[in-house]
Amino acid sequence: MKAITVRPPESGASIEEINIGESGSRVKIIENGICGTDREIVKGIMSAASAPKNYDFLVLGHEALGILEDDAGDLKKGTIVMPINRRGCGKCINCLNGRADFCETGDFVEAGIKGMHGFMREYIYDDPEYLVPVPSQIRDIAIMAQPLSDLEKSVAEMMDVQDRLHWRCKDATYGCRKILVIGTGTIGILFSMLLKTYGFDVSIANRRGPTDVETRIFDEIGLKFVNTSAHSNEKYDGVIEASGSDASVIGYAIARLKNNGFLGLFGFTQSGTLSLSPVDLQSIVYRSISITGLINGQKPHFEMAMNHLTQWKTQYPFTTSHFITRSVNISDQKSVIDALENRIPGEIKTKILW
Amino acid sequence: MKAITVRPPESGASIEEINIGESGSRVKIIENGICGTDREIVKGIMSAASAPKNYDFLVLGHEALGILEDDAGDLKKGTIVMPINRRGCGKCINCLNGRADFCETGDFVEAGIKGMHGFMREYIYDDPEYLVPVPSQIRDIAIMAQPLSDLEKSVAEMMDVQDRLHWRCKDATYGCRKILVIGTGTIGILFSMLLKTYGFDVSIANRRGPTDVETRIFDEIGLKFVNTSAHSNEKYDGVIEASGSDASVIGYAIARLKNNGFLGLFGFTQSGTLSLSPVDLQSIVYRSISITGLINGQKPHFEMAMNHLTQWKTQYPFTTSHFITRSVNISDQKSVIDALENRIPGEIKTKILW
Amino acid sequence: MKAITVRPPESGASIEEINIGESGSRVKIIENGICGTDREIVKGIMSAASAPKNYDFLVLGHEALGILEDDAGDLKKGTIVMPINRRGCGKCINCLNGRADFCETGDFVEAGIKGMHGFMREYIYDDPEYLVPVPSQIRDIAIMAQPLSDLEKSVAEMMDVQDRLHWRCKDATYGCRKILVIGTGTIGILFSMLLKTYGFDVSIANRRGPTDVETRIFDEIGLKFVNTSAHSNEKYDGVIEASGSDASVIGYAIARLKNNGFLGLFGFTQSGTLSLSPVDLQSIVYRSISITGLINGQKPHFEMAMNHLTQWKTQYPFTTSHFITRSVNISDQKSVIDALENRIPGEIKTKILW
Amino acid sequence: MKAITVRPPESGASIEEINIGESGSRVKIIENGICGTDREIVKGIMSAASAPKNYDFLVLGHEALGILEDDAGDLKKGTIVMPINRRGCGKCINCLNGRADFCETGDFVEAGIKGMHGFMREYIYDDPEYLVPVPSQIRDIAIMAQPLSDLEKSVAEMMDVQDRLHWRCKDATYGCRKILVIGTGTIGILFSMLLKTYGFDVSIANRRGPTDVETRIFDEIGLKFVNTSAHSNEKYDGVIEASGSDASVIGYAIARLKNNGFLGLFGFTQSGTLSLSPVDLQSIVYRSISITGLINGQKPHFEMAMNHLTQWKTQYPFTTSHFITRSVNISDQKSVIDALENRIPGEIKTKILW
Repeated sequence: MKAITVRPPESGASIEEINIGESGSRVKIIENGICGTDREIVKGIMSAASAPKNYDFLVLGHEALGILEDDAGDLKKGTIVMPINRRGCGKCINCLNGRADFCETGDFVEAGIKGMHGFMREYIYDDPEYLVPVPSQIRDIAIMAQPLSDLEKSVAEMMDVQDRLHWRCKDATYGCRKILVIGTGTIGILFSMLLKTYGFDVSIANRRGPTDVETRIFDEIGLKFVNTSAHSNEKYDGVIEASGSDASVIGYAIARLKNNGFLGLFGFTQSGTLSLSPVDLQSIVYRSISITGLINGQKPHFEMAMNHLTQWKTQYPFTTSHFITRSVNISDQKSVIDALENRIPGEIKTKILW
Repeated sequence: MKAITVRPPESGASIEEINIGESGSRVKIIENGICGTDREIVKGIMSAASAPKNYDFLVLGHEALGILEDDAGDLKKGTIVMPINRRGCGKCINCLNGRADFCETGDFVEAGIKGMHGFMREYIYDDPEYLVPVPSQIRDIAIMAQPLSDLEKSVAEMMDVQDRLHWRCKDATYGCRKILVIGTGTIGILFSMLLKTYGFDVSIANRRGPTDVETRIFDEIGLKFVNTSAHSNEKYDGVIEASGSDASVIGYAIARLKNNGFLGLFGFTQSGTLSLSPVDLQSIVYRSISITGLINGQKPHFEMAMNHLTQWKTQYPFTTSHFITRSVNISDQKSVIDALENRIPGEIKTKILW
Repeated sequence: MKAITVRPPESGASIEEINIGESGSRVKIIENGICGTDREIVKGIMSAASAPKNYDFLVLGHEALGILEDDAGDLKKGTIVMPINRRGCGKCINCLNGRADFCETGDFVEAGIKGMHGFMREYIYDDPEYLVPVPSQIRDIAIMAQPLSDLEKSVAEMMDVQDRLHWRCKDATYGCRKILVIGTGTIGILFSMLLKTYGFDVSIANRRGPTDVETRIFDEIGLKFVNTSAHSNEKYDGVIEASGSDASVIGYAIARLKNNGFLGLFGFTQSGTLSLSPVDLQSIVYRSISITGLINGQKPHFEMAMNHLTQWKTQYPFTTSHFITRSVNISDQKSVIDALENRIPGEIKTKILW
Repeated sequence: MKAITVRPPESGASIEEINIGESGSRVKIIENGICGTDREIVKGIMSAASAPKNYDFLVLGHEALGILEDDAGDLKKGTIVMPINRRGCGKCINCLNGRADFCETGDFVEAGIKGMHGFMREYIYDDPEYLVPVPSQIRDIAIMAQPLSDLEKSVAEMMDVQDRLHWRCKDATYGCRKILVIGTGTIGILFSMLLKTYGFDVSIANRRGPTDVETRIFDEIGLKFVNTSAHSNEKYDGVIEASGSDASVIGYAIARLKNNGFLGLFGFTQSGTLSLSPVDLQSIVYRSISITGLINGQKPHFEMAMNHLTQWKTQYPFTTSHFITRSVNISDQKSVIDALENRIPGEIKTKILW
C-alpha cells in the first residue's frame, strides 16, 4: 500500500509503496493530521525517532481517522475510528492498567515516532481495543482529538496533583481558580478551551498581541489575553507552559504563581537556561509550589476528547470552524511534502486526505 | 510569667518576665524543643520572623509539651498536650477546612516565628481545638511530634501527588518504590522512619559516610545508606531533599529520578544556583517528573505523629532512645542561651525543661 | 408580580399576584419546567413541602431559565441563567464547601419545595453565586439541566464510592463495566445518556417493552433494553434504581449485581416492602456490595449538565429534540393548571413559558 | 509433616501426617490462631469450605506465624513472618493489582477455607511475596494481625466511600465523626481500637452490659459503651455491624445513622429478616445513606496491622495483654481438638503452639 515514510535520523519524507505484515481489524485511513513532531522527524532533528525493529524505514503519522471495514469487538463496520498512538510496554503496572502515558520502563512504542509504524498510509490493521469511535457529527474536526487527548490527560493530572489541597472553591466549582496558559498555538487554544469547560478562570498569553482571528477565538471562548512582554503582578493558581519557547518563560511562570500554585510543563523548551537562586528554591518550598511534567493521553482521554469536541462544535462554532487551516490530498504529492516540511502562518491544523 | 523572648530582626534571646493577655484553657509548659529555625531567629537571620501585633517582642518556641490544668472540650485535666504551632488566616478555603499548611492568603501566624507568641514560657492559654493529646507512654520523646507532623503532611502530600498514576506496586504495597532521603539530620532520620513505616524501600544519603550511631540507627530501621559523593547510576521513584544544603543537590536529585519520579523539597537551600538546560527541562516533561514544595503539618498530622512515635518506641528502641541528645533546665540560664545559639555535634533534639 | 403558588399541605395551585421582599440581581424568568415533585405538592401529598418562614404560601417551581437584567459578578446583562434550587444551611462543613447536597443538619432550603420561594414567577432576585450561565445554543433544552444536575452528582458519587476498588478496566476506561438503569422515564433516559458519555456499557430497563419513540432514543444513544418481567441471569457492575416503583425492584436490583457491585437508589419507592434474609445480607458482605442513596446536584453539577446538554444536542439530535414534550403559556391559565396536575403520556418535560 | 486436617462438608478435625507437594521458601510454623470460621468448618456448617483440587482433605488454618528458614527476596532467614490467607484469581484487574479482597471472578482461594491448604501444619512453602514480616517485639500478639488486616481494609474502605463528601471535620481530623461499633467480641474491640487510632469518636455496643475486663479495656482505649437494649436517639456518622447477630440489628443500625451516614456490614447475620418499608427506603435516598459490605484484607492491610499492633502494645498494655486468652500445644492433641470445637467464655484469641 501507499505510505508516507521517513528514515530517521535522516531528513526527508517519501511517499512510497510499502509491504508490512500486520494483523488485526482493517481500518481504511481517511485523513491524517500533521503536528510539530512530524515536522521535526522530517527535518531529522527529533532524536527519539526510530524505525520499528527489523525495518529500515518508519511510516510517519500519529494523528489519524479511519473507517472500520468490518465489525470488531463492540464496534460496527463503517464506524469512524481514531487509533491510539502510544502503546504500553506490557510490563509495568501503569501499562498493565491502560496508562502507557506513565510507562515506567520507557519501553512503550509510539506510532510514527518510536518503534511503531505510523498512520500515514492507506490502511492499518489493529486491535479494536486501540480504536476509539468518533461521533459522525464531528468527523470534520475529530482529527483534533489526538492532540486534545494529551491535554485531557494533562488537565486531569493537574487536578489529581492539586487534590493535595482544597482546590475547589467555596461554591465547589473551580470558578475562583485562575489559570494562565502560555502559548496561543493549537495546544494553547485547546488547553484554554478545556480549562474553561472545567469552569476555571482562564487567561491565555503570548509575548505579542493577538491576531484578529485569535481575538475572535478568545472572545468566543471567554478567555482573557495576557501579553507577557508587559509588566504584570497578576498571580495565578496554575500556569500551563504550552509554548515550548526559551527556558526563561519557566522562570516567568514560577513568578506568576500564587501560594500552592501548580506549574504544568507541556511545551518542549528549546533554548536558554533556567536559573533558580536559593530564594527562588525556598519560595517553592514555603509556598508549596508544584512543578509537574505533562505528557500523552491514553484511551479514556481520547474518549473525553471526543465528548469535548462534540460539545465545542455546538458551543464555539467560530473557533471550531477555524480548527482546520488547510487540507492537502495525498495524490498531490508536492503539497503533501510541502505541508510536512513547513508550517503555514496562523496554522491550527493541516490535514492530509486519503 | 517567665519566658524566652527575641526581638527580630535583632539577634539574641532573653529570659525575662512577661505579661501578655491571652484567653483559653491554661496549659503548664513542661518542655520545649529547639530547632534550627529557633537558632536562626536568635541569630537574627530569619527574615520572616516577626512579633505579634502591638508587641515589641516575640516569645520564642514552636515545639512544646504541657499539662492541661483543667478539663477542656474532650480533654481531661492533667492530659499531656502539644500545642499546634501554625494557625490559619480564617479566610481561605484551606484554613477554613483546618489546613493552614495550605493557607492561600499567607496571613497565617506561627507560634514563636511569625505574628504569634511562642511556647517557651511557663504557661500558655489556648483553645483546646489546638491542643493535641499525647499518650503518656511517649512523654519522653513526644517533643519530636512537632517536627514529625511536618513530615507526616509531606509524605501524605507525596502520596496525593503520585495518585496521578498507579504508584502502588503489583502487591498493592509501596514495597517496590524506592525513595532516597537526602540528609541524615533529625529531619532525614524521621522522614526515613516514616517512609519505612509506609512500606517504601528507603535509602538515606549524606555527602560523608555515616557515624557509628547513624549506622546503628540505619540498621535498626532497615535503611540503605548512600554516599552522594560517590558516583551512582541508581534511580529512585522519589527523592526527598531534607538537607537544605547547596542548590546543586537539587540537580543531583532530579538526575536520580526514575520516570514519573517525585522530588519533594523540604530543606531550605541556602547557597548556590540550580541551572536547568533545555535537555533537563524536556526530561521533566517527557518523564512526567513532579517537583513539589513540602511544608507544615496540621492537626491530623500531629495525631499521626503521636501514633507513629508510639509505634516506633516499641519497634526502634535504639533510635528512639537517641532522639533526645541533651536536656537543659530553664533555671540554668547560661546553658539555655547556649543551647539556643549552638547546635552540638550529633544532635537530634535538645530540650528545655521547665 | 404574577406567580404560581401553593399552600401545603393543601392541594391545588393558583396563579396570583404576590409581593415578596427579596434582594439580589434581578432575573426575568423565561420558562419553568414541571417535574413529579411539583405535581406531588399540587396534589398535597408531598409531606416535606413547606412555605418559607413568615409566609402562608409557597411559590412553586425549582426548574427555571431566566435572563439576567444587569451585570452581576462575572455574568453580563442578558445572559441566560439557571438558578440553583437547593441552598445550604450555612453551618455544616459540606454546606460551607458548596455541597448542600450533603447537608448534615437538614437545615437546607429548596426553592419551590421547602422553606424557599420557587421560580414560577415573573422575576427572581438572587445572588449571582447561585446563577449558572446557559450557553445560548442550548436555550431550547437547557431546562433539563436542573434534573440532569442531580444525576451528574449521582454518577460522580457512584464513581467516588467505587474508587474503593479498581473500577476502571484494563484499558483505563469504564468500557467493561455494565450498568443497568431501571426506569425509562426522564430520569432513566438522562442517567443512561450520562453513563454512556462516561464510557460505561449501559442497559435501560422497564417492566414493559419500549415504545417506538423509546426504541429510537435507545438506538441513538446506544443503549441495550432489558424487560424486567422476563427472567434473566445477566449481572451488572452497577444498577441505578430510577423508577421509584415497588420496593421489590430493589430486591431485583441486588440480585443483578456482580461482586463489588454498586446499587444507587435515586427513585422514591412508594409501595411494597424489601425483605432481606440472612443469605441476602451475607451476600452483601462477602460480595462487597454497596447500596447508596443518591440525591441533589450543586453548582459544579449544573455546570457539568450544561456541558453535557451542549454535547448531546450535536450528538443525539433525535433524543434531544424529544426532550420538550409540551409547552404551555402562563397566560393560558387553564392549561398551566392542567399541566401542573397531570402528566401526559410519553412526557419527558413540560415547560411553562413566561 | 504433621497437620490439622478437615474433610468438608464432613464435621470433625484430625491431626495427621500429610504429604503435599508445594514449592517456595520454607517457613516453620510457630503458632496458629483459631477463629470462628475454623470452628464452623470443624462443625461442618461452613458451606463455602472446600479442599484444594485433587485432594480429599483440607489443611485447616488461616492465621499463622512462622520463621523463614532461608533468605527469600528482601526477607532474611530467621525473620518471623505471617502468610497472607487469600490469594487472587490471577485474571481480574483487582487481583492483578494485589487486591484479591475485591476479586471479581470469585476464583480466589483462601488458605484453610476454600481451595488452598491452610497453615495448621509444621511447615509451609510459599512465595515471599505472600509473607509479611513481623516486628520481633510483637511476636506475642502478632497473630492478631490476620483478623486485624480485614479491619484495616474495612476502615480504609469506609473512608474511601465517605470521600464522596466532606467527611473530615473543620479541624481536618475525624474527631467530630461518631462511629458506633456493634459487637464487643475480638472483631468489635479491634475495630474500635483502629477507629480510635484514626481519630474517630468511637462507641462500642452490646445488647448486654460490659464485663469487668471489657470495662477496663474500653476505658483504656477511650471508648463509650452503648447498651443496645436501652432506648436511644443517639445518632452516628457511621455504624459498623460486627456482631453477626439477628438481621434486626441492621434495622437498628440504619435507624442510628445521621445524614450521609455509612453502615459497614462486617458480621455474617445468621437469623431473622430485615424488612424495609418505603419510608425506610426513601430515607436511605434523601439522607444519602451508604450501606457497604466489608471483607478481607490484603498485603498493605497486613503491613498496617503490624504497625498498629506495635503502636498498641505500648499504648494499650492492658488490652493487648488480654489478646491471647489461651494457648494449647500441638502435642496436646485433646486440647487442640477441644479448642477447635469450642470457644471459651471471654475468649479473644486462642492459639495453637507448634
